[in-house]
Amino acid sequence: MSSTRTERPTPLSGFPELLPRQRVVEQAVADTLRATFELHGFASVETRAVEPLDQLLRSGETSKEVYVLRRLHAPVDDASSAAGLGLHFDLTVPFARYVLEHAGRLDFPFRRYQIQRCWRGERPQEGRYREFTQADIDIVGRDELPFHADVEVAAVMAAALSRLPVPPLRLQVNNRRLVDGFYRGLGVPQDRTPEAMRAVDKLDKVGPDGVRGLLVQQVGLAAAAAEQCLALARIVGTGPSVADEVGSLGVEHPLLDQGLAELLAVLDGASAAGTDRFTVTADLSVARGLDYYTGTVFETRMAGYEQLGSICSGGRYDRLADDGRTTYPGVGISLGVSRLLVPLLAAGELDASRSVPSAVLVALVDEESRPVSARVAARLRARGIPTEVAPSAARFGKQIRVAERRGIPYVWFPEAGAAAAADQVKDIRSGEQVDAHPDEWTPPALDLHPRILARPPGGPAGSPTAEEPAP
Amino acid sequence: MSSTRTERPTPLSGFPELLPRQRVVEQAVADTLRATFELHGFASVETRAVEPLDQLLRSGETSKEVYVLRRLHAPVDDASSAAGLGLHFDLTVPFARYVLEHAGRLDFPFRRYQIQRCWRGERPQEGRYREFTQADIDIVGRDELPFHADVEVAAVMAAALSRLPVPPLRLQVNNRRLVDGFYRGLGVPQDRTPEAMRAVDKLDKVGPDGVRGLLVQQVGLAAAAAEQCLALARIVGTGPSVADEVGSLGVEHPLLDQGLAELLAVLDGASAAGTDRFTVTADLSVARGLDYYTGTVFETRMAGYEQLGSICSGGRYDRLADDGRTTYPGVGISLGVSRLLVPLLAAGELDASRSVPSAVLVALVDEESRPVSARVAARLRARGIPTEVAPSAARFGKQIRVAERRGIPYVWFPEAGAAAAADQVKDIRSGEQVDAHPDEWTPPALDLHPRILARPPGGPAGSPTAEEPAP
Repeated sequence: MSSTRTERPTPLSGFPELLPRQRVVEQAVADTLRATFELHGFASVETRAVEPLDQLLRSGETSKEVYVLRRLHAPVDDASSAAGLGLHFDLTVPFARYVLEHAGRLDFPFRRYQIQRCWRGERPQEGRYREFTQADIDIVGRDELPFHADVEVAAVMAAALSRLPVPPLRLQVNNRRLVDGFYRGLGVPQDRTPEAMRAVDKLDKVGPDGVRGLLVQQVGLAAAAAEQCLALARIVGTGPSVADEVGSLGVEHPLLDQGLAELLAVLDGASAAGTDRFTVTADLSVARGLDYYTGTVFETRMAGYEQLGSICSGGRYDRLADDGRTTYPGVGISLGVSRLLVPLLAAGELDASRSVPSAVLVALVDEESRPVSARVAARLRARGIPTEVAPSAARFGKQIRVAERRGIPYVWFPEAGAAAAADQVKDIRSGEQVDAHPDEWTPPALDLHPRILARPPGGPAGSPTAEEPAP
Repeated sequence: MSSTRTERPTPLSGFPELLPRQRVVEQAVADTLRATFELHGFASVETRAVEPLDQLLRSGETSKEVYVLRRLHAPVDDASSAAGLGLHFDLTVPFARYVLEHAGRLDFPFRRYQIQRCWRGERPQEGRYREFTQADIDIVGRDELPFHADVEVAAVMAAALSRLPVPPLRLQVNNRRLVDGFYRGLGVPQDRTPEAMRAVDKLDKVGPDGVRGLLVQQVGLAAAAAEQCLALARIVGTGPSVADEVGSLGVEHPLLDQGLAELLAVLDGASAAGTDRFTVTADLSVARGLDYYTGTVFETRMAGYEQLGSICSGGRYDRLADDGRTTYPGVGISLGVSRLLVPLLAAGELDASRSVPSAVLVALVDEESRPVSARVAARLRARGIPTEVAPSAARFGKQIRVAERRGIPYVWFPEAGAAAAADQVKDIRSGEQVDAHPDEWTPPALDLHPRILARPPGGPAGSPTAEEPAP
């Protein structure tokens, strides 16, 4: 709480901040996610923003990106100054810690969602920020977690994603057991499997010939086996055809059968949410998550924004957490809310119909009658209509422009001091003005709250969608 | 995204974390705040968690509590490693910066609410945490901000606070101009006024004799003037009686008159929200904010939790922000959500009726019929009823206990495999079981979502309130 005096500040690279009407979009997306997760019985959890550094550094590969905390006046070489704390860089590490810490007071299987900010000190680029919001759902069991939990998290996230006002999304599913079993059936030595997966993951970058070369020369596979690995990675499909294509490769292994069955079950469960703007496919080239997940793996691409990479990823961990006595297997999926929204907002693909919650601006006849206008506002609010009173008793034309600039659709004129026998309300888009009573008048449901405007395919930035009345 | 293996972790002092049913309470409180703020037309803003250190350190007094960020692998003496960034310790400093940075794209007067976490590296104690959530509302003008904005923020926060399920709250209002004018009228030199205010602020600690001594010996007031200062600070009231009491002290000054008129207007505006559990009083001993606010000052005490200090504070800044060309006056009030809730949750004064959103658990007849149960759940969800499916096909008694442990009120038995001709639903609190159709049955509105249970005065911890049906 203190006043601030400064030159005009400049933005910080990697720390995106939204204007009020962009924030309306972000809130609407968060509300949709929350409503969907709760409808499926997922409980909300928020964890603290910090974790002990030793927790954050266990995973190794992202350790260089951690922001470490230090209290300002602690000596810089005092490692204990903030007790070795860093900001979390995802919601999985803190959730695993939360499960272990509170295990005695949680009911398993425990189904939670978590929508929170994370921080990574990496170099900012489009879709990758130093501060960003993630929305995760996970189901975690104690000692065991039945496979159908994989189907459930896929179906719940699919239900949520299919309700978002964003370009078409494609949820891609793969399965670690399927790939492991296939490689075993091919005779690839188990200790070479991770290396072979990493080679296949380069398909986009180096092409089939490049991958073939890596598999033969670096991983040491026979040419025929390398060809089979490539053939598996090229399988993409939406249903049982995937089983046929895998079968046609002639490789057999029990793990392959189990993985394939799991993959088909996940496809089936998630596909119920399918629309022409949300598709679910098996994509056997999805390899990025295979290194650390143990079964199901998810990624998600957004049409026209493929350069963002996967905007929603996850999978099955047979050991999400482990306290030495008990193992907690889990399956989860994590949506990059900032990665998804910030580029769409920047491109003008998403906008809100107004920058404020108010559906009505109550005009001021003069400053002395402010209590009259305030009472009108109170009566509208009592019936759930977001309302504000004009900031000053300027002439009505100016008060209408106050509403216009904010996108408030209605201006209310109290009778106080006016010749009219009743209050009147004006739709400032159509200019229509009618008598109205503050205990009875209600705006159309579409006008009650700000609406999200998605740019129609090929339309100009920020243009209203078909159902948006012309301004 | 990585698995974690560890011993059972221990809590971090000063970083409170909530269990799922406590989080239900926190969410309900945040929802109430948001709904109230939006009903009054306040727009949501979220700022990044970090600010440049030079911004954070302007205010001086809290600088020692700032958490500074450093990227893990940056050299410890590299001040630029995280560009000199620290975590914000309140929402006022970041909001002032946001206003300056985005001024060209905001409409003034700009009314915003902001519910976000803050961090301070201070020693934790009850109600004071290292990570905590604040809920702020502010109105900020460009060049000028009419006084009625003070009345409005008081009224809006009063409306929000009066809807919270917490012990009785008392909003205390004072006014810097009133006190300044009184001191001037008394002949206190203007440069001694701050010191005199700090002496009077010690009334609780050192008593009237102590304050009298400080005012005479340290501040250099005459004994009669010191007596008058003490008399002013003892004035408490809910209406025009305050004006009479101030007037009876016989001190006159135009600033005193202006401050008194402002104080009465704020009292009047906020009192509309008054109930027997929410009172608004003028309290002329409120001095803590007078040092940096320029007019209206707010504090709030919670009955039975006076040791927490003020849980909701704010006031008028004639210069919230200033970029050298333009001045942005503001008035705001900030609720300490964590300071309010964490002690109440710890004491068991607040609880939720269940730990999950689910109103219904659909039982599994056997694992093979899981699709049948999943379809029932989908049909209930399609009508907005939060539903989950039992995790495993244990015997029904065990499935009912799964619901019982989570507080889920209803268990649904699909007809699949059973002799019954129709599905049935059981209220596990009463044991009543009736035929039901998944496209028609609806739980009572009170059971649809978790409810907040406030401990009745004198009741045992976590006991249900009067309107809670017996379990």
